[in-house]
Amino acid sequence: MKRLKLSILLGIYVFSFLKAQENVNNIQLNNAQPAYRTTIQIPDVGEFKVLKGDFHMHTIFSDGNVWPTVRVQEAWREGLDVISITDHIEYLPHQEYLKMDHNTSYNLAKEEARKHNLLLVKGTEITRNMPPGHINAFYIADANRIDIKKPELAFDMVKEQNGLMIWNHPGWKAQQPDTCLIYDIHKKLIQERQLHGMEVANHTEWYPIVLQWCIDNKLAVFANSDSHQPVAYSFDLKNNHRPMTLLLTREHSLEGVRQAIESARTIAWFDKQLAGPEKLLKQLYEACVKVKRIDHANKKPIFELTNKSDLTFCLVDNNSDQAEPVSYILRPRTTIHIHVKDDQKVVYTLSNCHIGMGKNLSIKL
Amino acid sequence: MKRLKLSILLGIYVFSFLKAQENVNNIQLNNAQPAYRTTIQIPDVGEFKVLKGDFHMHTIFSDGNVWPTVRVQEAWREGLDVISITDHIEYLPHQEYLKMDHNTSYNLAKEEARKHNLLLVKGTEITRNMPPGHINAFYIADANRIDIKKPELAFDMVKEQNGLMIWNHPGWKAQQPDTCLIYDIHKKLIQERQLHGMEVANHTEWYPIVLQWCIDNKLAVFANSDSHQPVAYSFDLKNNHRPMTLLLTREHSLEGVRQAIESARTIAWFDKQLAGPEKLLKQLYEACVKVKRIDHANKKPIFELTNKSDLTFCLVDNNSDQAEPVSYILRPRTTIHIHVKDDQKVVYTLSNCHIGMGKNLSIKL
Amino acid sequence: MKRLKLSILLGIYVFSFLKAQENVNNIQLNNAQPAYRTTIQIPDVGEFKVLKGDFHMHTIFSDGNVWPTVRVQEAWREGLDVISITDHIEYLPHQEYLKMDHNTSYNLAKEEARKHNLLLVKGTEITRNMPPGHINAFYIADANRIDIKKPELAFDMVKEQNGLMIWNHPGWKAQQPDTCLIYDIHKKLIQERQLHGMEVANHTEWYPIVLQWCIDNKLAVFANSDSHQPVAYSFDLKNNHRPMTLLLTREHSLEGVRQAIESARTIAWFDKQLAGPEKLLKQLYEACVKVKRIDHANKKPIFELTNKSDLTFCLVDNNSDQAEPVSYILRPRTTIHIHVKDDQKVVYTLSNCHIGMGKNLSIKL
Amino acid sequence: MKRLKLSILLGIYVFSFLKAQENVNNIQLNNAQPAYRTTIQIPDVGEFKVLKGDFHMHTIFSDGNVWPTVRVQEAWREGLDVISITDHIEYLPHQEYLKMDHNTSYNLAKEEARKHNLLLVKGTEITRNMPPGHINAFYIADANRIDIKKPELAFDMVKEQNGLMIWNHPGWKAQQPDTCLIYDIHKKLIQERQLHGMEVANHTEWYPIVLQWCIDNKLAVFANSDSHQPVAYSFDLKNNHRPMTLLLTREHSLEGVRQAIESARTIAWFDKQLAGPEKLLKQLYEACVKVKRIDHANKKPIFELTNKSDLTFCLVDNNSDQAEPVSYILRPRTTIHIHVKDDQKVVYTLSNCHIGMGKNLSIKL
Repeated sequence: MKRLKLSILLGIYVFSFLKAQENVNNIQLNNAQPAYRTTIQIPDVGEFKVLKGDFHMHTIFSDGNVWPTVRVQEAWREGLDVISITDHIEYLPHQEYLKMDHNTSYNLAKEEARKHNLLLVKGTEITRNMPPGHINAFYIADANRIDIKKPELAFDMVKEQNGLMIWNHPGWKAQQPDTCLIYDIHKKLIQERQLHGMEVANHTEWYPIVLQWCIDNKLAVFANSDSHQPVAYSFDLKNNHRPMTLLLTREHSLEGVRQAIESARTIAWFDKQLAGPEKLLKQLYEACVKVKRIDHANKKPIFELTNKSDLTFCLVDNNSDQAEPVSYILRPRTTIHIHVKDDQKVVYTLSNCHIGMGKNLSIKL
Repeated sequence: MKRLKLSILLGIYVFSFLKAQENVNNIQLNNAQPAYRTTIQIPDVGEFKVLKGDFHMHTIFSDGNVWPTVRVQEAWREGLDVISITDHIEYLPHQEYLKMDHNTSYNLAKEEARKHNLLLVKGTEITRNMPPGHINAFYIADANRIDIKKPELAFDMVKEQNGLMIWNHPGWKAQQPDTCLIYDIHKKLIQERQLHGMEVANHTEWYPIVLQWCIDNKLAVFANSDSHQPVAYSFDLKNNHRPMTLLLTREHSLEGVRQAIESARTIAWFDKQLAGPEKLLKQLYEACVKVKRIDHANKKPIFELTNKSDLTFCLVDNNSDQAEPVSYILRPRTTIHIHVKDDQKVVYTLSNCHIGMGKNLSIKL
Repeated sequence: MKRLKLSILLGIYVFSFLKAQENVNNIQLNNAQPAYRTTIQIPDVGEFKVLKGDFHMHTIFSDGNVWPTVRVQEAWREGLDVISITDHIEYLPHQEYLKMDHNTSYNLAKEEARKHNLLLVKGTEITRNMPPGHINAFYIADANRIDIKKPELAFDMVKEQNGLMIWNHPGWKAQQPDTCLIYDIHKKLIQERQLHGMEVANHTEWYPIVLQWCIDNKLAVFANSDSHQPVAYSFDLKNNHRPMTLLLTREHSLEGVRQAIESARTIAWFDKQLAGPEKLLKQLYEACVKVKRIDHANKKPIFELTNKSDLTFCLVDNNSDQAEPVSYILRPRTTIHIHVKDDQKVVYTLSNCHIGMGKNLSIKL
Repeated sequence: MKRLKLSILLGIYVFSFLKAQENVNNIQLNNAQPAYRTTIQIPDVGEFKVLKGDFHMHTIFSDGNVWPTVRVQEAWREGLDVISITDHIEYLPHQEYLKMDHNTSYNLAKEEARKHNLLLVKGTEITRNMPPGHINAFYIADANRIDIKKPELAFDMVKEQNGLMIWNHPGWKAQQPDTCLIYDIHKKLIQERQLHGMEVANHTEWYPIVLQWCIDNKLAVFANSDSHQPVAYSFDLKNNHRPMTLLLTREHSLEGVRQAIESARTIAWFDKQLAGPEKLLKQLYEACVKVKRIDHANKKPIFELTNKSDLTFCLVDNNSDQAEPVSYILRPRTTIHIHVKDDQKVVYTLSNCHIGMGKNLSIKL
């Protein structure tokens, strides 16, 4: 009897042991890229929640190289809140292999977006020679109906569908090799409130003059990736990030995003730089950076700057005999100490925060 | 006159200055993922050059999510020498959106491979229930002619086209949930020399029992990624690598690769582990690791192990009172020191080098 | 006149140009490790601010290898708020080269701590064979007066100085090779409220049984680095972190830290694991992780878990037929999605959150 | 009998099981920084083996912050072959706490170097105002005897001991704030063959003018770290490296290193840049980079450049209408493709390879 019990017990142990040690049929490896979303930490700016968007990207349904669902998955992983897939209407190099219409990529991505709690703005790219160049349309109802030869009529159709429009990469050298001009057609679109923004940064370049136009015309600034490849193959996601449009929104919803664009409450974020209206940029900086003064008798004061966000701020001392060294990088989620000689005029230029062409944000400690 | 010269000089300086400081139209950013190929360093093994291959991957032309050219570009970047795109013949979930035949993905990738000096083996996946499960065919002439209902006839067609075949993921739980059996059809294919290899590792799992079958039947072992997503989204490329098949070849050519497979001169590399025939694995280890003994009077000898390769070797001391600590990781391009008490029996098991089911390579210092 | 102006202007340009282009005497490089502090983000737990401490480390003034100021600098960089330098009283292998007393390392680090706004607790290590083993004393007035042969008298002197004491690495194999026992002397110290805590983790090991003793005796748990080398040479600071003691404090001050220790409001953090009283650990988890349920008609609910902190949480499903895969890693500042079949019993064990020997925290979604 | 065997077997299983599952006294963590040496791969240059040296660093025995053995350990880890600890003779800020002489740091590091198979050159820093500034002496017999007030006499003593000397950081702003001059005393030392080299790079700066002096006078160039802190706290070891002196030696020995210095067969490596005599630099480049031309009918030729080394080469196109983009970074162990329009004049400047003040190495593909 006892012997039986022993045998049973032994059996259990042998079994457990074998189970643990000898599953020789199928062993799981540690080589997988785990599936998680990395938060991009940016505190609220006043009453506004800061959403992260990318409003320009392609799939195999125009000249991109990925299936539409990939655009949702990579955006979710990278911490984006809202994207728009903007396949070209006019440029379809893969068409020979496809059965599609201009709404296909949106339709294929929709459910994937829902499951990831990611906002998907229905969009398309109206792709013409300059002028008017390339125009993205958002919040459209039907991209097929925008496939109209005369650009003005295509733009009117966007309006009819209650869509928004932005001018993509105005400084793109393929279309403006030596200059960067704004044409009558753009001025007209602005005047008639049909153009709601411009890309001040696209892919791997940015256009200071376009920032100035946006400031002057109270248009929303955009930084978009214009991705054709998987994003990880175009941008250095380890040390940098894809270009993003920061939206100061009242709510995490398609409507909230739309209002932010219409009210020009956006900031472009590209290559760890920021560009936008002075007022917004200042508010954003102040929400992110906390300054504390450490005083001690007979010692130079020390300013302790703590950056709560995932943004980077580069401070340059305007008054070189005030402090040393003359420039500081305040990295994401770090603290730096600035030792000052005299605290009368502790003014710094944020060399990576652009508020106009050749103009940078200034801050006082 | 002098004034004129001054003005001209000034003009030049002003111009240079403005050129440098004020190109406000288009500024290049530093956010790009640069385009380069990372070498995977593995020294020659005897007379053989070690090529790195991946013989299982998908594109949008079956159930993958990327355009065929992406498979070439990512393989080139990751240091591979040879790939095969193996879209399913029978499983085509995107078909509703495609105009294609079974050769389309190969045809679209061919020129990209040539430009990258990457070997592209024409392949396809014959996708059936178990038995026979999924079979990859390589070196085929026309995938369309392999689209035959009866698997045996499909396999015969591969043979007729002078193709090679391997059995994919024999231990896949979807097809063999509780066991991992070899069926009569596989035995017959082996006997008739129609099956040239098996995947001992696929995607994020490996099958020790399949390694044993390959050893017993002198078949080529394979480790393949079976990628559907962009590879960087499936595998941790920073700390790990996609599964690869190392091929001991006489030349960098499609023919050289074919001979290595037919001669079973392959080693599977997955999750920093290696699996293959004892003789090959030993030669590979000896080509990669150099041992130097540091002796000093009245001191314990120190063994200095230097790994010249990008492979990893995990050494476990079999005789725990011989050395401390009992296990060592010899990382890529590093040197470690092992202090031994007594140099009589300095034998180590390479816990990440598998030469059969439950069998590991042993080495002596 | 105009000519003069031109010349001056020219001079300025030439000067600027030369300054920028031709400083061939001394060019600054980009190889420096910049000086910044990385924030360890942990939200407040109820009314308490969570400070990060390390209460065990050495300098050249006992058997360590760095000057005392280095201990402050590295702690500041790594995001610590409070440290104690605890050089051995009895073990001084470098003594032959030093002119020192037992307060020297504290005195040399004091000003560096002030400048970095880092709290420096005056401490020492009373270093004896087992029992009582090694005891750290904190908040002492004079380490020299603790240099007393009989351990009981040394402990009394700590008490006389109003110091606190903890038992270091009770499970250290050099002192308890086969067992881990608590001795009468420790019981007596606990009873007389002279012992305020124990190290449940030290350097590269941890002691579950010691966690249980702390829980049972309401003592503060500690995780300390016991650093002898520069911290970056002992611990993998890129993928891991030095052991730290999390203190739930009412204020960022030496007094705040003392009260947290005396009230046993501490949590040990080591190797991305947490150990401490169930109540505190639960509060900490709830402060860090936000759960949101995504419901859709006829679809399985998705739970979205967002980790706001720099801590890691490993969830294991207790009911394997409830969800797949069965375990999840919630990394710092990330979000994961858990798809559940049935939301009746969504209970998870936090496999890296220890609340006793062999006991882990459980949470419900 | 059988029952006994069963019991014994059972006992073994229970024991193994408990051993694996329930060692609650002491659990090893994964937080350690493992101890290994990272190879810096540089192929032989002609008949010469390239050793990596750092000939300028401090310990607590002058104004450094680490114990001498740390200098050996960190150098071994970082892949160095030879170092010299060069504590100041005249500047001893920690002296109040030390019992030492000028040979102490060497004596304390010697055995650690032997165990690591690292060459340790006995050295010291003769530390004077400018002129002559700071002079490192190597291969000395006794640093104490060099502690002589008059610099000329100290230098003669180095000569008497058969030592070598280099001029440290000639462009250091603390000693030459506005200019970088060579003084009579240096000229005399060169003439009398008492000065064998100069630092063209020190810590985080480099001096193009000093490179020119070395070229003109056939002196060995040096790049040294001048470390005071742990090296990992001063230099960005993840993305960059400490300054090193590459030595083209006939053997891995102190004598081999000495001959390389005396023959000026050295190259300075700092911030991924290289500086040295044109001939050596060209040989080094050619040993590291292999070029292969991929030709195809009616296509632009592609040049495939493969860098076998851990050095970086930056190529800039001199003829902007020849190729696009105009500059390329050839990273360690990578391959890049350069597409050229016309293969007549494929000449590139290596912008990070300096062969004189304002002069860079040119190469042809």
